[in-house]
Amino acid sequence: MKPQGQEEFDGHTAYDNMLTGELDSGPCSGPSPDTDSQGQGVPKDPLLFIQLNELLGWPQVLEWRETGRWVLFEEKLEVGGGRWSAPHVPTLALPSLQKLRSLLAEGLVLLDCPAQSLLELVEQVTRVESLSPELRGQLQSLLLQRPQHLIRTTGTRPCWGSAHPRESSHDEEAPLKEQRQNALRHKLPPGAEAGAVLAGELGFLAQPLGAFVRLQDPVVLGSLTEVPLPSRFFCLLLGPPTLGRSYHEMGRAMAVLLSDPQFQWSVRRASNLYDLLAALDAFLEEVTVLPPGRWDPTSRIPPPKCLPSQHKRLPLQTQEVKGPSAQRRARAEDRHGHPQHTPSPELQRTGRLFGGLVQDVRRKASWYPSDFLDALHPQCFSAVLYIYLATITNAITFGGLLGEATDGAQGVLESFLGTAVAGAAFCLMAGQPLTILSSTGPVLVFERLLFNFSRDYSLDYLPFRLWVGIWVATFCLVLVATEASVLVRYFTRFTEEGFCALISLIFIYDAVGKMLSLTRAYPIQRPGSPAYGCFCQYPDPGGNESQWTRTKPEDRDDILSMDLIADHHSLQDLGLVNASLLPPPECVRQGGHPRGPSCHTVPDIAFFSLLLFLTSFLFAMALKHVKTSRFFPSVVRKVLSDFSSVLAILLGCGLDAFLGLATPKLMVPREFKPTLPGRDWLVSSFGTNPWWLSVAAALPALLLSILIFMDQQITAVILNRAEYRLRKGAGFHLDFFCVALLMLLTSALGLPWYVSATVISLAHMDSLRRESRACAPGEPPSFLGIREQRLTGLVVFILTGISIFLAPILKFTKRVQLLLMPAKHQPDLLLLRHVPLSRVHLFTAIQLACLGLLWIVKSTPAAIIFPIMLLGLVGVRKALEWVFSPQELLWLDELMPEKERSTPEKGLEPECSFSGSESEESELMYQPKAPEINISVN
Amino acid sequence: MKPQGQEEFDGHTAYDNMLTGELDSGPCSGPSPDTDSQGQGVPKDPLLFIQLNELLGWPQVLEWRETGRWVLFEEKLEVGGGRWSAPHVPTLALPSLQKLRSLLAEGLVLLDCPAQSLLELVEQVTRVESLSPELRGQLQSLLLQRPQHLIRTTGTRPCWGSAHPRESSHDEEAPLKEQRQNALRHKLPPGAEAGAVLAGELGFLAQPLGAFVRLQDPVVLGSLTEVPLPSRFFCLLLGPPTLGRSYHEMGRAMAVLLSDPQFQWSVRRASNLYDLLAALDAFLEEVTVLPPGRWDPTSRIPPPKCLPSQHKRLPLQTQEVKGPSAQRRARAEDRHGHPQHTPSPELQRTGRLFGGLVQDVRRKASWYPSDFLDALHPQCFSAVLYIYLATITNAITFGGLLGEATDGAQGVLESFLGTAVAGAAFCLMAGQPLTILSSTGPVLVFERLLFNFSRDYSLDYLPFRLWVGIWVATFCLVLVATEASVLVRYFTRFTEEGFCALISLIFIYDAVGKMLSLTRAYPIQRPGSPAYGCFCQYPDPGGNESQWTRTKPEDRDDILSMDLIADHHSLQDLGLVNASLLPPPECVRQGGHPRGPSCHTVPDIAFFSLLLFLTSFLFAMALKHVKTSRFFPSVVRKVLSDFSSVLAILLGCGLDAFLGLATPKLMVPREFKPTLPGRDWLVSSFGTNPWWLSVAAALPALLLSILIFMDQQITAVILNRAEYRLRKGAGFHLDFFCVALLMLLTSALGLPWYVSATVISLAHMDSLRRESRACAPGEPPSFLGIREQRLTGLVVFILTGISIFLAPILKFTKRVQLLLMPAKHQPDLLLLRHVPLSRVHLFTAIQLACLGLLWIVKSTPAAIIFPIMLLGLVGVRKALEWVFSPQELLWLDELMPEKERSTPEKGLEPECSFSGSESEESELMYQPKAPEINISVN
Repeated sequence: MKPQGQEEFDGHTAYDNMLTGELDSGPCSGPSPDTDSQGQGVPKDPLLFIQLNELLGWPQVLEWRETGRWVLFEEKLEVGGGRWSAPHVPTLALPSLQKLRSLLAEGLVLLDCPAQSLLELVEQVTRVESLSPELRGQLQSLLLQRPQHLIRTTGTRPCWGSAHPRESSHDEEAPLKEQRQNALRHKLPPGAEAGAVLAGELGFLAQPLGAFVRLQDPVVLGSLTEVPLPSRFFCLLLGPPTLGRSYHEMGRAMAVLLSDPQFQWSVRRASNLYDLLAALDAFLEEVTVLPPGRWDPTSRIPPPKCLPSQHKRLPLQTQEVKGPSAQRRARAEDRHGHPQHTPSPELQRTGRLFGGLVQDVRRKASWYPSDFLDALHPQCFSAVLYIYLATITNAITFGGLLGEATDGAQGVLESFLGTAVAGAAFCLMAGQPLTILSSTGPVLVFERLLFNFSRDYSLDYLPFRLWVGIWVATFCLVLVATEASVLVRYFTRFTEEGFCALISLIFIYDAVGKMLSLTRAYPIQRPGSPAYGCFCQYPDPGGNESQWTRTKPEDRDDILSMDLIADHHSLQDLGLVNASLLPPPECVRQGGHPRGPSCHTVPDIAFFSLLLFLTSFLFAMALKHVKTSRFFPSVVRKVLSDFSSVLAILLGCGLDAFLGLATPKLMVPREFKPTLPGRDWLVSSFGTNPWWLSVAAALPALLLSILIFMDQQITAVILNRAEYRLRKGAGFHLDFFCVALLMLLTSALGLPWYVSATVISLAHMDSLRRESRACAPGEPPSFLGIREQRLTGLVVFILTGISIFLAPILKFTKRVQLLLMPAKHQPDLLLLRHVPLSRVHLFTAIQLACLGLLWIVKSTPAAIIFPIMLLGLVGVRKALEWVFSPQELLWLDELMPEKERSTPEKGLEPECSFSGSESEESELMYQPKAPEINISVN
Repeated sequence: MKPQGQEEFDGHTAYDNMLTGELDSGPCSGPSPDTDSQGQGVPKDPLLFIQLNELLGWPQVLEWRETGRWVLFEEKLEVGGGRWSAPHVPTLALPSLQKLRSLLAEGLVLLDCPAQSLLELVEQVTRVESLSPELRGQLQSLLLQRPQHLIRTTGTRPCWGSAHPRESSHDEEAPLKEQRQNALRHKLPPGAEAGAVLAGELGFLAQPLGAFVRLQDPVVLGSLTEVPLPSRFFCLLLGPPTLGRSYHEMGRAMAVLLSDPQFQWSVRRASNLYDLLAALDAFLEEVTVLPPGRWDPTSRIPPPKCLPSQHKRLPLQTQEVKGPSAQRRARAEDRHGHPQHTPSPELQRTGRLFGGLVQDVRRKASWYPSDFLDALHPQCFSAVLYIYLATITNAITFGGLLGEATDGAQGVLESFLGTAVAGAAFCLMAGQPLTILSSTGPVLVFERLLFNFSRDYSLDYLPFRLWVGIWVATFCLVLVATEASVLVRYFTRFTEEGFCALISLIFIYDAVGKMLSLTRAYPIQRPGSPAYGCFCQYPDPGGNESQWTRTKPEDRDDILSMDLIADHHSLQDLGLVNASLLPPPECVRQGGHPRGPSCHTVPDIAFFSLLLFLTSFLFAMALKHVKTSRFFPSVVRKVLSDFSSVLAILLGCGLDAFLGLATPKLMVPREFKPTLPGRDWLVSSFGTNPWWLSVAAALPALLLSILIFMDQQITAVILNRAEYRLRKGAGFHLDFFCVALLMLLTSALGLPWYVSATVISLAHMDSLRRESRACAPGEPPSFLGIREQRLTGLVVFILTGISIFLAPILKFTKRVQLLLMPAKHQPDLLLLRHVPLSRVHLFTAIQLACLGLLWIVKSTPAAIIFPIMLLGLVGVRKALEWVFSPQELLWLDELMPEKERSTPEKGLEPECSFSGSESEESELMYQPKAPEINISVN
């Protein structure tokens, strides 16, 4: 679905960014705030497509064949395989560069040549003194020969551009049909130019012939290049036969030089031969050298994920555009792909009551119309489908969990209704409309604790919960009024990781525990177990049955009494004569009563449920891994991987339906009425509770407020990271204000409580990412930003609301929950370069200890205070500053912002070591996770 | 277990090979037949350990610190992390090499300096005119300062060699304790030398100071290098402070130069400055250059798996040792890691009757004593344990399969006995004693077909089988006499792959089919199924029970009759009054009779078996993948991965035992007697069969002979591949002769038929591989050969024989068989460079069509002729020569040898393009799978 996110030069942005990205280290650069501020800088140089045509077949049949091509990386023609190689980093031999230099120095250099066609160009190039007229004629006809290209036209198999080389006549200057159909053409942005390098060995030449031409106006040179682009550069490298393929290597060297941004920049502005040679020397100054004994020069290096920044290499062009502050910011973010939380305008404290909220409203109001207009793109359509599926999966799962946690006080219907109402309201009002509201793990855990408490003290749950909600909303409004959201600066990676790990742990623990509890509900019959057999007893015509009913009515359907019967070793004692071996349901239908220890055990259910659980889980995991496999086209891989959970659930349900076993199912209501029988939609304000409970509810509400504040704000911090390049700004205060109002609404209606959910919101953003489609071979598509609008979320929740009436057909099984396990982050080995391993372990140990403590607290009767413990994480992080040095914390976590500002030994920070141009560590080591929103959906 | 295979310089071989390997592209080089022919070539240069000591702390506290070290690859000190980086390919900047060149050209070059200590050396080096006496003194004391090393001593955590730098006095020339305990020391071979590069910026120097010293006699220079090795080279690069760390980069450049084999070779023989500079220039000629815009110079390249061959770079040293023919052979094998089957002496036809056999016996006889003496190594002990476990797992599995295939005519006991007897006999007599005999898939399939045939025609199976065996032995002896084994030349990869794929398919099909058949044996009870309930009926005192018995004795324990009862809807009709709900076994014990449709169904078994199947399979797969994971030390990973199947079986058995369910188990005999009741060990010659059947048995025997010939010889070809560097030669004729004799023996005793098994034999060889342990950081251990002897196999089979008496406790479950699935080969993408994809697909399609045909034939009543079809594979391969060109076949498969010799257009073969030194494709692209015997065990 997401491939629609790729853009084909819509407006100027994609193309500009394409070029900026090219000079700007591509997708790995930090956010460039100036992406849209085009027109004010210097005009950008067009992209250059370089092609190497090699003269082959000497001395038999001479022909030109394209053997290599470059945009950013090299593609080599596999002559035997009849295909282009994968793009790779070009490697050169030093002697070929040196030979090229001397050939250029002695050869012909025409800068701003006015030739208008290949014929004119060839005439200009061959006007060299050393050539005799006869030789010149031979050479000219050779140069006018049509070269062979291996062209892969759109949609068809590759074909040789010109299977039989013919002499080109004057009227053959027009590009060929294959050239115009070349699929590569669509990958290059409009305005791209071509450079042709012609190299080869020619027996009749007595001495080398080198020519370098820069055309004044780029012109399409017939079928010289495989793509009919206007050519800007033309380079001819011919000479007498040598040992090895040295002219081939020189041609490659020339092509690699031309594909280098700095060389290209210089050579476009060169005014004479010496400028050209200086550019070559500057290139040589910067090359990386691999020793011969330790590296096989023929191995191909795949394109690196991050290209080195070209800023310092191009002093004039881009440095001016980016201000120094933007550069510093970008660099700081580059360092760990994690923003430094330098207080953005959204998090500046105004000092006035509700000041932050007012500012948020003011800021977002100006974007409000565009929040709907920007949604008019087909990509939003697929995003809606994707997020809708994820949302209803979530709603069903959460409804099931909630139903269990509250023993039926709430259920799937409440979950659907609440999701639809709260989600839609939030999308309409919130500061960050890309956020998807959802019920999250910690809130669920708190709800369960609250329910257990009210059950233990025989309270009326929903009215009690209503008062908790009212208090929470009050506290939250106080937090909004006092601009408490500026405290999110203290939520560093340490806090986020601890919080996320706890949520994962809760889900995994619950899922495994619930699975194991099935073996109690559906015991496995072992060979020696006493419970065995079941028969159907009919009412005795004489009244025996009724007598039995009279004497032991409470044991009538009880397994225990049947165990006693089994112990009697004989049915005779009970005088049961009217009996058959009908299955229990059939027995009941015929007016009998099932009797026996086996009547209530259903065999095979426990193991089958376990099998379903494992199958769905492993299938989902396997599908998730499809994304990185080498099979299938990338579109199929992405769909399979994104919908892995949904597909796995469908597989599980299908298997279950196929075998038709009586596995436990999720109870779905058949009518639109609250799950708890006998209650209205509006929760009564007191119920059977004493009046003072409405005051006492303030205590749990305080805890829940802490939880909701942390849960909401951690998500908000993650979503508003600078690396996602959001243009419309965040709204921390407004978001939290909306959450507070929705608390009130959902509590009054007895619906689940909602906060922003990290994973699903990130998936939402990911499905709306804008990427450049025009990519040079080997270059990953560059991230342009996110389609920020309110409509997708709104439509998703409207659809969810409509789905309430579909709920009866959605009888999903309960095993969904394990699929919620978030994928673990990969270890960031880079910090090991800068922090001793023991310190890393200490940091991790502290995190683990915190997590252990949280888990223990969660498991004790004191569980209800665990929100305070979560808040304690922030305090522990603060205390870590006495244990770790600021540099260590910078690598292990992040510096807290005001600490960063006040730190006197700023010189010690790693940032400084990047300023020197000779620094061995580049910013690129700290690969930002940024534009890759690499998150699994539900 | 296998890490014992690493050798710590046992004798000369390891050390020699270490050096040869170093020059000889290490583990990726083809087999070097001259590994043991030491002493005749030129003496090898010792290995060089190079260390860069950098002067840090200017202008405050000057100190020397080791910041880099090189043996083959670079290790960099992570100053912040306090650890050494992973070994990586060093990358240099071109200017640093050029600056180094000019510094050396102007500096002091002392070749064959006679200094005996650091003090003397420092005095020599500082005797430069440009230095004032005062400066000289300062410099000398600075150079004598003890440098700081980060030393990781054996077994303890790293420590700084010298935390507080002190002035070194004259008596401190002895190496420090930490130096002597340095773990790195044990990785370097004896005789290794050190090279020290000292670089840094010094404020009081007015002009650069460069010195390069080659010591006449290497001498330990106190604590200068972290390992107390005698130093051969000393290089000083000091100068006034510069922008950036240019002296650091020059120091690195010097160190990388010294670590280059060719530069090292030249500089050891240099007689003046110009030789030194010429060596540097030669290095520059060969470097690989990466363009600056496309490669981040700070990224670290991990050591490549294959290093480029150093042969052509060192003209004098090694080229002489390897003859041109050996080189060509090695290159041909390198190309696809697959020998060309150039007729080895073992496969030369003598033209005499039994000529090949006689030659084999003669050749192997000379090695016979050493076949026992070479086994005296602890590694053989662990190999025995490893192969023993694999063998009994195999024997149990095969016994189970055989018991099913022959309906109990043979079983586990026969499998154990046959494995022990045949295996031990083969190990004592065969030509290739590393081969492990086993019953293989195709032979099992044939045995099943033979049994089905004899059952359909009511034949006495074992006597019929005896005659088949006699005929097979006869045919096989004819094949031996006529030297048919030379035909193995026609068994190319095409045939091998088709054969192996068929075996895999048979096993997977059988395993899945058997699993699904469990649901018939143990039906799953669905909610609506009629079979329900079971009770216990006691014999009526009045005789009701006996009357029931009399009327329907045949239906007494039949489920069908009970279904009828259930249909009656009432037990009353049967007059059953004396009944209880006891479980069936208990009921029988108390003298009652279980009645009811559920009595014979055991719930939960089908799903639990499926769970066990999946669990064992996935666990085995997961353990197999542990080998390539990043967790655990490599020893643990290897053990877990090698024993993955055994561990998975143990897990499955443990789970089964823990739950104690009545899953189907393998029947294991309790006494030492044939499985078929009432037969002697010696099979009677006719039994109830007519006499002419002994003649008719020749027909199936002919088919079986083809099968056994192919099965045996394909394995033999694989095992004797040149890449395993076997020294004692193969014995194709002798091996096949032994197989023929064992056919006779096993047929007479009614034991399974045996041939060489590929997978387990490869595992055997792998467990006996000899590797060099002394490895430079980043260098994989090099493969030295295989411990060829007869003892391990013999002991394994003796142990297997003893295990017959352990058999009763080995009640493994049947689900083992799926674990036999061989891992699929990885796609060889290199051929895509040389063969169009459509041709590759055509080749694969033909292979698949052949496989499909084989499978269809196997599934029809004509199945028994499938050995002929297998033989047909060779014919199809021959016919492919009309479809594909010789070059294509060379890449896709292999050329058949005599075709290769007779081909007139030899110039077209890819081999030719490698001869040119400028060739872009190197031999290294064709990474041989050779020394990595990467095969899963059972």
